Amino acid sequence: MTHKVLLLPGDGIGPEIAAQAARLLKACQEAGLDIEVEEGLVGGSAYDVHGDPLPAETLAKAKAASAILLAAVGGPKWDKIEDLSKRPEKGLLGLRKNLGLFGNLRPAMLYPQLASASSLKPELVAGLDIMIVRELTGGIYFGQPRGIEVRNGERVGFNTYIYSESEIERIGRVAFKMAQKRGKKLCSVDKANVLEVTILWREVMERLAPEYPDVELSHMYVDNAAMQLVRAPKQFDVVVTGNMFGDILSDAAAMLTGSIGMLPSASLNESGQGMFEPCHGSAPDIAGQNIANPLAMMLSVAMMLRYSLDETAMAERIEAAVGSVLDDGWRTADIASDGMQTIGTEAMGDAVLAA
Amino acid sequence: MTHKVLLLPGDGIGPEIAAQAARLLKACQEAGLDIEVEEGLVGGSAYDVHGDPLPAETLAKAKAASAILLAAVGGPKWDKIEDLSKRPEKGLLGLRKNLGLFGNLRPAMLYPQLASASSLKPELVAGLDIMIVRELTGGIYFGQPRGIEVRNGERVGFNTYIYSESEIERIGRVAFKMAQKRGKKLCSVDKANVLEVTILWREVMERLAPEYPDVELSHMYVDNAAMQLVRAPKQFDVVVTGNMFGDILSDAAAMLTGSIGMLPSASLNESGQGMFEPCHGSAPDIAGQNIANPLAMMLSVAMMLRYSLDETAMAERIEAAVGSVLDDGWRTADIASDGMQTIGTEAMGDAVLAA
Ligand SMILES: CC(C)[C@H](C(=O)O)[C@@H](O)C(=O)O
Ligand SMILES: CC(C)[C@H](C(=O)O)[C@@H](O)C(=O)O
Repeated sequence: MTHKVLLLPGDGIGPEIAAQAARLLKACQEAGLDIEVEEGLVGGSAYDVHGDPLPAETLAKAKAASAILLAAVGGPKWDKIEDLSKRPEKGLLGLRKNLGLFGNLRPAMLYPQLASASSLKPELVAGLDIMIVRELTGGIYFGQPRGIEVRNGERVGFNTYIYSESEIERIGRVAFKMAQKRGKKLCSVDKANVLEVTILWREVMERLAPEYPDVELSHMYVDNAAMQLVRAPKQFDVVVTGNMFGDILSDAAAMLTGSIGMLPSASLNESGQGMFEPCHGSAPDIAGQNIANPLAMMLSVAMMLRYSLDETAMAERIEAAVGSVLDDGWRTADIASDGMQTIGTEAMGDAVLAA
Repeated sequence: MTHKVLLLPGDGIGPEIAAQAARLLKACQEAGLDIEVEEGLVGGSAYDVHGDPLPAETLAKAKAASAILLAAVGGPKWDKIEDLSKRPEKGLLGLRKNLGLFGNLRPAMLYPQLASASSLKPELVAGLDIMIVRELTGGIYFGQPRGIEVRNGERVGFNTYIYSESEIERIGRVAFKMAQKRGKKLCSVDKANVLEVTILWREVMERLAPEYPDVELSHMYVDNAAMQLVRAPKQFDVVVTGNMFGDILSDAAAMLTGSIGMLPSASLNESGQGMFEPCHGSAPDIAGQNIANPLAMMLSVAMMLRYSLDETAMAERIEAAVGSVLDDGWRTADIASDGMQTIGTEAMGDAVLAA
């Protein structure tokens, strides 16, 4: 069966790094992978053309695809759009919600070749390998009621942080299974000393635990988790948390590696369909200069092969190629240490393809 | 006029470090400070005696005091209390809310003597001096509606993240004024690309900016702020944010210094009345062993003198004493580097008093 892959370049550096992913996909096809690649518009660039960050055509293509590769959305150009529903980010959030991509996997791992890029002392991050499992279609991102309205003569802004038991259970199972495949330690992050919604979260995690007796479940308050990530990040194996806390902690964890330009992510639904994106953003300040690091985007292709297309061998080939490119000393500017020679986006794409 | 100071030892290591604060207060009295010190119960220890983490008597004393010194609350002993309103944390939250202590100042500064304690590379944290201004009586901590209830046949948990314009304006002014007294840079942290409540937040901050023309205002999304704190913390001077984001970011920032046992905090209301606490928690695992670091608690006394009692000179004397104790090489276990000799809680109190 031919798999449909939808490539969404988006905004900022998106098109440049997406171009390298497209070349990689072509190479995979030549190596025998049975896929059909389409492109679509999303984010600010879709808004500019259609007045909508998630045009119906893009959504239809996304629904029909086995997997989506999204580069990045957003930029200052669209920050002044008054209507929040038209902002580039809503393209991304709309895809997550419409496709039910509730399970967000955000690995934070340190490439040994890039150990010196971390702002932490080497001994604290050497061998770092954390998997953050973030709930992606619920919580305060989508909770109702929400808005800005006048109450008692002044405006108030409000959002609702809400989870049902079934939503918590669903993401909990993803996290427990992930822990089973890894170091068998799962840390659930909440604020159960203050927020009722996370009391329920903790309770459901506790209820699931006996079904995964080989996994050691612990709980941590979110403020402490932010501290522990800075203090001793290697204590973590798999972390599971809600949408908002996951947004914050996964970015902090990614930054611990010092090379966020290397980190892909996966967002999966119940049928295994997935969207794959780099963890970094659209970096508008360096867009169009052929200097952005395409590796997180190319590694997103590998994650797609592994999680949505079940092509583990080919995923491993890509990951090995990236490793050997780093071994050979090729660096884009963001991951170069002092005095190292750097190459551009395209040249990095060449290097990975050659490897 | 005699100032009333209420000392609340609380739980865990609280009583031990509060005892050192009490000695310091006595020394201040001997040096001519006109204060009257009372004690009260709060948190788990109050629950054990009165079945209530914030007994009416304690609240009455707090209202009558010019300033409150709180050591720490909470511990595993009380984690199983089903009724969230009886948990130790509610003692703390109740004091904040009832006294209107909306302005929480959380400095994260690195003592040069302790530079090696940071998990970050020395050059990234040398001279670090951030002031996080956290809104403390609103946001999702206190928003209504909240709870756990059955909807569509299953339980859901929910909380409300809500701010009014006047609440935002009030904390904004504290932050702008703080920036004026410091490096004149203010970074407001929100999630305005997703949450309506923080769109209003950003708008109000923008509206205030022209009144403080000497302060440079910037905005940052909370996920990026968590990253930037890890990547390049010295870019920040004053940070202002809501209750929940402030909880997370102030702990991360404090941990950057590697010596959270050194950091005091202040929570102020509109009339300058304040509660002063160490940033660290109740550390039940080391309670009762005379090894906890009393310095954050003693520095909280200095913050009290500065912000609520307007006794800057005496505050500076305490801060200088702490500096010279560190210069002399005295360390509790939490801030000692390898091979250094450590002293206990009381001995550290002695050292500060002697200095
Ligand atoms: C762009 C933004 C809406 C998004 C989020 O907050 O989820 C991003 O920060 C992310 O983490 O994927
Ligand atoms: C103990 C807890 C309720 C409290 C908070 O979340 O505000 C603490 O973490 C703090 O930051 O003072």
